[in-house]
Amino acid sequence: MDEQRPQTEGGVRDLYALLKRRGYLWPSFEIYGGVAGFYDLGPLGSLLRENVEALWRSKFVLEEGFQLVDCPNITPEIVFFHSGHLDKFSDVMVSCLECSRPFRADHLLEGGPGTDPALIARLFRDRGIVCPDCGGALSEPEEFNLMFSTRIGPGSDKRGYLRPETAQNIFINFSNLYRHARSRLPFGAAQIGRGFRNEISPRQGLVRLREFHMAEGEFFFDPLVEGFAPFSRYRDTMVNLVPASSPDATLRMDLGTAVEDGTITSEVLAHFMGATASFATSLGIAQERTRFRQHLPSEMAHYARDCWDLEISTSYGWVEMVGIADRSAYDLTQHSKGSGTDLSAFRRFDEPKVIEGTRLVPDMKVLGPIFRGRAREAGEIISSMDPSSAGSAIGEGIRIEIDGQHYDVPDNAYRIESFRDVVHQERFVPNVIEPSFGMDRLMFAILEHSYFEDPNRAEEGESGKVEPYRILRLDPGIAPVKCGVFPLLNREDLSRIARDLDADLRRQGLQTNYDASDSIGRRYARMDEIGTPFCATVDHDSLKDGCATIRERDTQMQKRIPLKDIPAIVKRMVGGEKTFSDM
Amino acid sequence: MDEQRPQTEGGVRDLYALLKRRGYLWPSFEIYGGVAGFYDLGPLGSLLRENVEALWRSKFVLEEGFQLVDCPNITPEIVFFHSGHLDKFSDVMVSCLECSRPFRADHLLEGGPGTDPALIARLFRDRGIVCPDCGGALSEPEEFNLMFSTRIGPGSDKRGYLRPETAQNIFINFSNLYRHARSRLPFGAAQIGRGFRNEISPRQGLVRLREFHMAEGEFFFDPLVEGFAPFSRYRDTMVNLVPASSPDATLRMDLGTAVEDGTITSEVLAHFMGATASFATSLGIAQERTRFRQHLPSEMAHYARDCWDLEISTSYGWVEMVGIADRSAYDLTQHSKGSGTDLSAFRRFDEPKVIEGTRLVPDMKVLGPIFRGRAREAGEIISSMDPSSAGSAIGEGIRIEIDGQHYDVPDNAYRIESFRDVVHQERFVPNVIEPSFGMDRLMFAILEHSYFEDPNRAEEGESGKVEPYRILRLDPGIAPVKCGVFPLLNREDLSRIARDLDADLRRQGLQTNYDASDSIGRRYARMDEIGTPFCATVDHDSLKDGCATIRERDTQMQKRIPLKDIPAIVKRMVGGEKTFSDM
Repeated sequence: MDEQRPQTEGGVRDLYALLKRRGYLWPSFEIYGGVAGFYDLGPLGSLLRENVEALWRSKFVLEEGFQLVDCPNITPEIVFFHSGHLDKFSDVMVSCLECSRPFRADHLLEGGPGTDPALIARLFRDRGIVCPDCGGALSEPEEFNLMFSTRIGPGSDKRGYLRPETAQNIFINFSNLYRHARSRLPFGAAQIGRGFRNEISPRQGLVRLREFHMAEGEFFFDPLVEGFAPFSRYRDTMVNLVPASSPDATLRMDLGTAVEDGTITSEVLAHFMGATASFATSLGIAQERTRFRQHLPSEMAHYARDCWDLEISTSYGWVEMVGIADRSAYDLTQHSKGSGTDLSAFRRFDEPKVIEGTRLVPDMKVLGPIFRGRAREAGEIISSMDPSSAGSAIGEGIRIEIDGQHYDVPDNAYRIESFRDVVHQERFVPNVIEPSFGMDRLMFAILEHSYFEDPNRAEEGESGKVEPYRILRLDPGIAPVKCGVFPLLNREDLSRIARDLDADLRRQGLQTNYDASDSIGRRYARMDEIGTPFCATVDHDSLKDGCATIRERDTQMQKRIPLKDIPAIVKRMVGGEKTFSDM
Repeated sequence: MDEQRPQTEGGVRDLYALLKRRGYLWPSFEIYGGVAGFYDLGPLGSLLRENVEALWRSKFVLEEGFQLVDCPNITPEIVFFHSGHLDKFSDVMVSCLECSRPFRADHLLEGGPGTDPALIARLFRDRGIVCPDCGGALSEPEEFNLMFSTRIGPGSDKRGYLRPETAQNIFINFSNLYRHARSRLPFGAAQIGRGFRNEISPRQGLVRLREFHMAEGEFFFDPLVEGFAPFSRYRDTMVNLVPASSPDATLRMDLGTAVEDGTITSEVLAHFMGATASFATSLGIAQERTRFRQHLPSEMAHYARDCWDLEISTSYGWVEMVGIADRSAYDLTQHSKGSGTDLSAFRRFDEPKVIEGTRLVPDMKVLGPIFRGRAREAGEIISSMDPSSAGSAIGEGIRIEIDGQHYDVPDNAYRIESFRDVVHQERFVPNVIEPSFGMDRLMFAILEHSYFEDPNRAEEGESGKVEPYRILRLDPGIAPVKCGVFPLLNREDLSRIARDLDADLRRQGLQTNYDASDSIGRRYARMDEIGTPFCATVDHDSLKDGCATIRERDTQMQKRIPLKDIPAIVKRMVGGEKTFSDM
């Protein structure tokens, strides 16, 4: 094959130019000069996104059984106060004292300086760093919270934020979701939606956006249950691993072995790494351009105990596309404390447990005259105390505290009793594994990996310049347009047949592109450039034989197919049930 | 039929209770006390929304050919400055001087007081209106802008807003979209996404939200082109019309007649009313509970010249679900002026036009010495002037203005020339018809219309109380769960078959609900209550005959079907290609 994958900087520029020209991506608000960190998906980008999300749903909602939720982007402050984002979701920023330009401090420092402003300030001083634009002196480093803030309702008292992740909506709905799962663990919940990060100085196109598309799953499970039966699906999946313990080596192994030798800490975590790898493959991402890299302790988010990123090789280098984090019981515990709401699940014992011990039993007749209106409260406090803290053996009573006041309780106000309870279940806060997908980045990787130029087929393009022949080899399942429909000539009899075919394809849910201008070669070229896998041409013979010519993008092969069969056949090829050569 | 549609207030309360209990809807942020105007879609609500949106896409994207875009929710201020929202997108608010509660002024006044704060203030004084909660005095009425504001990037200079409608993203992308449409009109563009309105005091559940789901189409066309060929599809569609000229009467007529007699001003507008009616029918909304009501001049949005709302009858009364607005050339004109960018299209003439007249031709040799560096500018101004304003006949020259300074131009510096141009096209700003859908409201109408109670089948519910039998008669195409899957007994051999059937259905893209607990009757009841159209039960006979029993929700009829055929059959019934009685 003479084709090339242009993995150079110029290649990325050419790709972005193609994506803009062809209606995949447009810089947002361009007529007003644009705003960094925002991109519009044009007609083709919007369809690509829908197709990628549909695959995600078929993997995680239909196959893995995650329950979807769909919640507001605006979130009241209290949620992020308790989730820790208000305090910790920030980058360190400096700005130029001359030209005012703001910078992310770590963009001006090499070697992962961490997030401590004082340490960073010292590094800036030691290395004499100045504004890379104008040479001006820089401000003191300070933390900048990355959440967009707003006010809810009239009056200015209710502050809200645009969610930086979709996950929190799921955690605060845990009890609703648990009830919907009929109070059984494990189960997963998922949300596909927008996330927002008020980046200090966004760059790298689709890779670092201020508003982006995410798909996140939160899988709730009991950490005391050993093994995870569905993991059998991915036990043999081969992956590339870069563990934190050897960050410079890439290990190639199957997930089962990685769990056995302790590289990955649990089957649940490994299962979602497998599901993620399988999803990436379904997008047409080649295995050899993916790896799972474990976070170093210094780069872990405040809520994570462990995290493996699916990274994909792009012209920006290895880029994080998916984070698979072990959030332990962090979020549920935080929100349970913050809201005073029970966010626990039941652990049912295989066999009832017998619990034996001693406990304090208050004597309300003695407590009543002492505590009056607060006697019930005093009784509850005494019941909940550990008998070993009661000094009854030496006759000195116990001490309790109500609303900050201390009271001595005489030892005739309670007795110590032995008990033997049979317990069938206990409450506990579930653990969470979170696979979190950055959909814009994935789209960029898909587009970049499928972009080919063929200099040997260079010809004069629509711009009048000689340009290489450009093809997006998108998987038919995610290609925005499934079939080009062409009348060979713009003649009433051919157009009518082609229009009918176009409508039939659309009735099957297949996006088409009807095109009647220029030569057939030019029309094929336009479809190749946007990644359309099939084209159907209606010609003179169609009037006689009721067939059209179907051409496949990747092989350039052509076959005659009856018009009435085309929609069903294209649908099967798009769904991966048949290939072009099967026909 | 003994069933009842409970259209009472109690019925709505029961419905909301069902929707909450069964995972359709949850008040957002409930563990933190909730925030008015926000709702979460639970697992079933999320699936319902996706199904409604999929139907919308098949109507407007595949059938009507609208191009999708997908743009940020955050929008810089300049966009809303020029669109007029910064100035005009507000409600008049009062708040209680005693208890501080804010109110929308028109909620406290009867009879549509308009939007002028001074007029409203007078009405409040004349009628002696006080706080309905505490009887306190009310503040002076003031305008409250309904957009949520935020700041983009570090530093506080760049203000942004959460979009109150998705339309603006489309208008400011007009040139990109026009190019994508290969510079041909008419074409439509659409966006499915969130809208935000910082309501003063939201109420009525899903009907008035601060963050909501919208689907908007903007159809760009040339107003000088008469008729609209695709309207033939809807010419005969019968609709209920409430024109502004007779707001108390409902006229029943076909759309063709409504255009002919001038009730609806154009075929393009009527076409999208027809498409909207057809979409509503596909959702299972009965025609007799819909009407199109034309806005009175006093209620028109600032950008609209005409507007017809699709209203649906609910327990809240007639509620606006879709607005079909004639936005004329308002938005494109505003953004063109605001950005200094050309947002026009070409109108190609069927036959070239000959334009004859006179024009001024500057003589640069004379202008040069007079105007020096600004001679070119002076020449351009003179060329663009109307010859009739030149006073050459009486030898007094003309007067021009450059940067606020006036100059006299001697009459030897130009001559008057006759011309005859052949013109093939001209530029003009397209007009826009906008069908704008409130998806949350539509979901509420769908749910309310499909909700039935059967007191004759009342029995003890899971709560232990005797409750009426509840059914959601959702159309199979939009029902969240398509098929319940039950092993008759929770026995290994039956479960295995049922699990396999469940996985097969999911591989076909069909959402299922696997349920192995309680009696079959209770399991049917659970599925009826969430609107699942079909259930499949695997029993002892399945081991022998390889069949399962399929039961249809609405008829309660049952049929034996081979297990291997069930996924394809259910898929066809869900797609509306077959009915249960066909089988």
